[in-house]
Amino acid sequence: MEDKKLKEICKKIRYEVLTSTTNAGSGHPTSCLSAVELSVALFFGGFFQAEDKFILSKGHAAPLLYSIYSVAGLIPSDWIYKLRKFGSPYEGHPTPRFPYVDVATGSLGQGLSVGVGMALGIRLRSKKDGIETGPKVWVLLGDSEMAEGQVWEALEIASYYKLNNLVAILDVNRLGQSRETMLGWDSETYAKRIESFGWETVIVKDGHDLVEISQSLSKIVKTATTDKPTMVIARTIKGKGASFLENKEGWHGKALDKEELKIALKELGKIDFNVLSKIDNLTDSVSDSFPPGFGSQKVASTLSGSLSPRHLLNYQVATREAYGDSLVELGEENPNIVVLDAEVGNSTYENKFQKKFPERFFQMFIAEQNMIGVALGLSKVGFLPFMSTLAAFLTRGFDQIRMAQYSQGNIKIVGSHCGVSIGADGPSQMGLEDIAMMRSVLKSVVFYPSDAVSTYKLTKVMADNQGIFYLRTTRGKTPIIYGEDEEFKIGGCKVHQLKSQKLKVKSSSKNSKVLLIAAGITLHESLKAQEELAKEGIEAIVIDCYSIKPLDKVTIINYSKEIKNIIVVEDHYPAGGLGEAVANVILGRSPATAGRRLQNLDNDSGQARMTREINFVHLAVRKIPCSGTPEELLRYEEIDSQAIITSVKSIRIHNSKVKS
Amino acid sequence: MEDKKLKEICKKIRYEVLTSTTNAGSGHPTSCLSAVELSVALFFGGFFQAEDKFILSKGHAAPLLYSIYSVAGLIPSDWIYKLRKFGSPYEGHPTPRFPYVDVATGSLGQGLSVGVGMALGIRLRSKKDGIETGPKVWVLLGDSEMAEGQVWEALEIASYYKLNNLVAILDVNRLGQSRETMLGWDSETYAKRIESFGWETVIVKDGHDLVEISQSLSKIVKTATTDKPTMVIARTIKGKGASFLENKEGWHGKALDKEELKIALKELGKIDFNVLSKIDNLTDSVSDSFPPGFGSQKVASTLSGSLSPRHLLNYQVATREAYGDSLVELGEENPNIVVLDAEVGNSTYENKFQKKFPERFFQMFIAEQNMIGVALGLSKVGFLPFMSTLAAFLTRGFDQIRMAQYSQGNIKIVGSHCGVSIGADGPSQMGLEDIAMMRSVLKSVVFYPSDAVSTYKLTKVMADNQGIFYLRTTRGKTPIIYGEDEEFKIGGCKVHQLKSQKLKVKSSSKNSKVLLIAAGITLHESLKAQEELAKEGIEAIVIDCYSIKPLDKVTIINYSKEIKNIIVVEDHYPAGGLGEAVANVILGRSPATAGRRLQNLDNDSGQARMTREINFVHLAVRKIPCSGTPEELLRYEEIDSQAIITSVKSIRIHNSKVKS
Repeated sequence: MEDKKLKEICKKIRYEVLTSTTNAGSGHPTSCLSAVELSVALFFGGFFQAEDKFILSKGHAAPLLYSIYSVAGLIPSDWIYKLRKFGSPYEGHPTPRFPYVDVATGSLGQGLSVGVGMALGIRLRSKKDGIETGPKVWVLLGDSEMAEGQVWEALEIASYYKLNNLVAILDVNRLGQSRETMLGWDSETYAKRIESFGWETVIVKDGHDLVEISQSLSKIVKTATTDKPTMVIARTIKGKGASFLENKEGWHGKALDKEELKIALKELGKIDFNVLSKIDNLTDSVSDSFPPGFGSQKVASTLSGSLSPRHLLNYQVATREAYGDSLVELGEENPNIVVLDAEVGNSTYENKFQKKFPERFFQMFIAEQNMIGVALGLSKVGFLPFMSTLAAFLTRGFDQIRMAQYSQGNIKIVGSHCGVSIGADGPSQMGLEDIAMMRSVLKSVVFYPSDAVSTYKLTKVMADNQGIFYLRTTRGKTPIIYGEDEEFKIGGCKVHQLKSQKLKVKSSSKNSKVLLIAAGITLHESLKAQEELAKEGIEAIVIDCYSIKPLDKVTIINYSKEIKNIIVVEDHYPAGGLGEAVANVILGRSPATAGRRLQNLDNDSGQARMTREINFVHLAVRKIPCSGTPEELLRYEEIDSQAIITSVKSIRIHNSKVKS
Repeated sequence: MEDKKLKEICKKIRYEVLTSTTNAGSGHPTSCLSAVELSVALFFGGFFQAEDKFILSKGHAAPLLYSIYSVAGLIPSDWIYKLRKFGSPYEGHPTPRFPYVDVATGSLGQGLSVGVGMALGIRLRSKKDGIETGPKVWVLLGDSEMAEGQVWEALEIASYYKLNNLVAILDVNRLGQSRETMLGWDSETYAKRIESFGWETVIVKDGHDLVEISQSLSKIVKTATTDKPTMVIARTIKGKGASFLENKEGWHGKALDKEELKIALKELGKIDFNVLSKIDNLTDSVSDSFPPGFGSQKVASTLSGSLSPRHLLNYQVATREAYGDSLVELGEENPNIVVLDAEVGNSTYENKFQKKFPERFFQMFIAEQNMIGVALGLSKVGFLPFMSTLAAFLTRGFDQIRMAQYSQGNIKIVGSHCGVSIGADGPSQMGLEDIAMMRSVLKSVVFYPSDAVSTYKLTKVMADNQGIFYLRTTRGKTPIIYGEDEEFKIGGCKVHQLKSQKLKVKSSSKNSKVLLIAAGITLHESLKAQEELAKEGIEAIVIDCYSIKPLDKVTIINYSKEIKNIIVVEDHYPAGGLGEAVANVILGRSPATAGRRLQNLDNDSGQARMTREINFVHLAVRKIPCSGTPEELLRYEEIDSQAIITSVKSIRIHNSKVKS
């Protein structure tokens, strides 16, 4: 396209950026203005191709993105009145509510990881399809976000995997939110650092010179023979296009008022409002090349009795190992499954998958933030990523998991070595906040299986269902307690009741029964306690809440109606775990449906309300743990069978005293 | 010291490393063995000085650390029988239970950030004391952890601050847990990357050659004229000293069995068990140079009526701004207070402190993980660090916060822009999981004030008390509702009751009263609802739970005894927030003290148990939010006054139906 038309497009985009943010009364116009020429050259200069992917890592430049699609005629130009308005797809930072966006951005430093995932996925798919070079992935980065370590994790892994289909464009506009960035306009130092991480770099001296940008992009497209990813480092001016904004501090994240807008638009000069330009090779079907849900092609797992012979009742198998076994089976039946490891695959047993399907296994090394971003990227180009590390270290990727929910990510996260039950390694290696973290994500599903069979089957459930799933596995071996025919589902639980002959007394009175609620390692402690209590004639019913979120509310509420003594026991810190989740279910009802629920309550005479005495005891990890054997630590934290029995007895003594 | 004695020391350390891990039955001997000469040269070669600091970033090499102090005669040599045993200070990964350790390590990639904090703190203190060059900070890094982005965050900020008192030693033993690291033995590439980040580097070709190591360390100590931090990059052999371990895969994190130990010890040859060597200039007082609690010198804030005139009832001030005001006052009265910013100081209002005390303000740029590590380091050399960013982005530092609890960190974290009430910027910028995150840390304190006065005073409470504190602030302005004389404390709350003349009816029946529990922005919505309900003759009592953790359990339980209709409303996702915390208090009791509590219950006839019907409704953010005005979003999520009123009414309709 001729330079003149590109310049007209730039003008129209500046107009839309400035006008939309003033209309909204907020936004980041100056961060958009620095990247106008970079974006226009990419999208309208013939570089961006139909199947390519684009990620706006500097998500606060959202209006720039919207204006590109407006110029391309893909969205109506009246978007400028809808920016940041309630219910509009033109949000303050991009989310997939805007149909041309794959992932939400706005927490800086995450876009390049997603790009790495997409580039890996495209290459894997291209190889399969016999295509030599697949589409490209383009990531627009801000210079402030280069301070985030995650960017360097993405850089190192991109060169490690020789992702020559990945191109990043760095908008070096010098100014951050409140001051100059660490490196200012020092493109040379950026280049030195990025090259040392194994990338090609191209410096653009004037990031507003369409000719220079185009020449640089041409070079990249031509030299696709390199086996390196490429970074374009472009010196730009924040606020470019309105003299009173250019390179000025104090203008980050600020919309112009109406007077200022007038002045700015006057400076821009005459706008050709009719300038419309198809993005070369890019039509309305832009997103259809990877149709939404491509990643979700449901290849229902067969659950074809494929449990191996050693998955027999009472056999001892670590749940983390059963996860590995399940992954291998899933890998056979679903070619879209890929697995990511943070260099602990021999601890999480993902190495089983690696041995069988090395081409679908990606070593992410010890860089958890990037691993989650890469998984998200893979999920957006048609793959179904599982990933794992020690549960403790998943906390490192909380921001990335949080953002994945806004990207409608379909990612499966597995945390091993949970709880104090890992033993001697000490607290730094114990996942004790992971349930709280994963439950807090709005639409997550959280599983915590207790044996190999349930782990095996829940891993398949994760593969069969869309969304962010978390599976918590245990380091030590646990006995298999479920048969091959047992079913495990989202929101399910298992009730363990002893056969009456095991009880000394024939039937317990309602007041003397005890309900033990547990999951994972503490389920086994609860079952031990149940046996012991039975010898003394105390009847305990044990619920295995393997689905910690969502909980099986109906079962819990029904049993809590019958049994007034309730003990929840978990290998996790007290806040945000199973105990609080259960307390909330017993005491509460969902607010979103409070009205409706109350209606339902009326129908069944309000039975769901608390109408009886309840003794609720929550056993959890309440002391800072230390090294020791698993048994010593479960004992120390008072979450073992003995602690359960002690609690049961003190409740019963208490009850009898109250009665007498 | 002569080379011969150093070699004897190395042998003894190898003996202790191998023996202790075999005794323990687990541990990481091979990761210790690669760094023996590096550590011995540093500690016994005259380089490490009395006031220097040392951080073992590769925490899994803990036995190496213990054996150094054993050789120095500072701990008894029978530690080798106590490694990883319950109750022993010789944990699997170091924690401050071992008295010569300042911070817990074992989550890789965190040590260098702590070192940066210590180096910054030492320099700040040295400047104050008029000392030209202060002590040095030494950090021993593993090569696997170089994949963590946080290390690069620490590298970039260390050179930005020209920390020539910081020396890192990189143990390049080539092998990670399950495979070769990304760069293997490529010291040149490490050097290129690290130099590009503004460091001096020194390559040690043979990291087991005591002479070469000593020469390199001498160079560093001599050339203290540089204004750069220095990294020693040493090629080593994992498992060095036992031929069957050397440079072999499959030996990470594995102790030798007794037969293997015999062979290894035979190879080591005769050990001089009496080799004892004071660490030059280092005596038992090693830790006393910065005595424990130095950081905690309590300079009680005066609360001297220093509220500014604009802190008047009904005045509108954003709590984030009140935080800034309070910081300034604290800065005046306590010279140890330092402030860290993640380049959003004009959003969090830390820039107020920056203007007043620029030398105690540290810009950490957009790198939250490192910011938290640096704060921890500062706290360990006598400073009291406050830090803030948007609450949403604090999730990025969860692993670092988690580890800080094991380091007994004294750090004050502030998250601004919490909840959907921020408005137009969209979900990526909204802190909606932060309460869950911060509550999950075992001994944390979590504040969520609703107005400027409570924020101002709670910031001072944070300064006056040891530990990990979190303060949640709000973007928008809120009216001041508390007078200057009000007191705010850890575990406190405020009860808001309308004067009876505002009620149409004189006194409500017990069953018709409503208890509204809220904090922060939803407190104001609750107070609005209270006014509205009063007009219709419905009495609502509002509790401001500004101390979300610990909660004021007594007050909540007492009111919940009197009032059966309870609504908790919060601007946070449902899991792990205020609602679940309150449910747990109402339903449960502390397990740690369950027995004792039950005793107490007996004394007051079990009143704390649930003996009545309770209608518990939990209003929280239950839909993925979007852009919009604060009002629209509070409405959409059904956490505004209108939603509260609707809930109150449906409960009451329900009650009357049940009764009739």
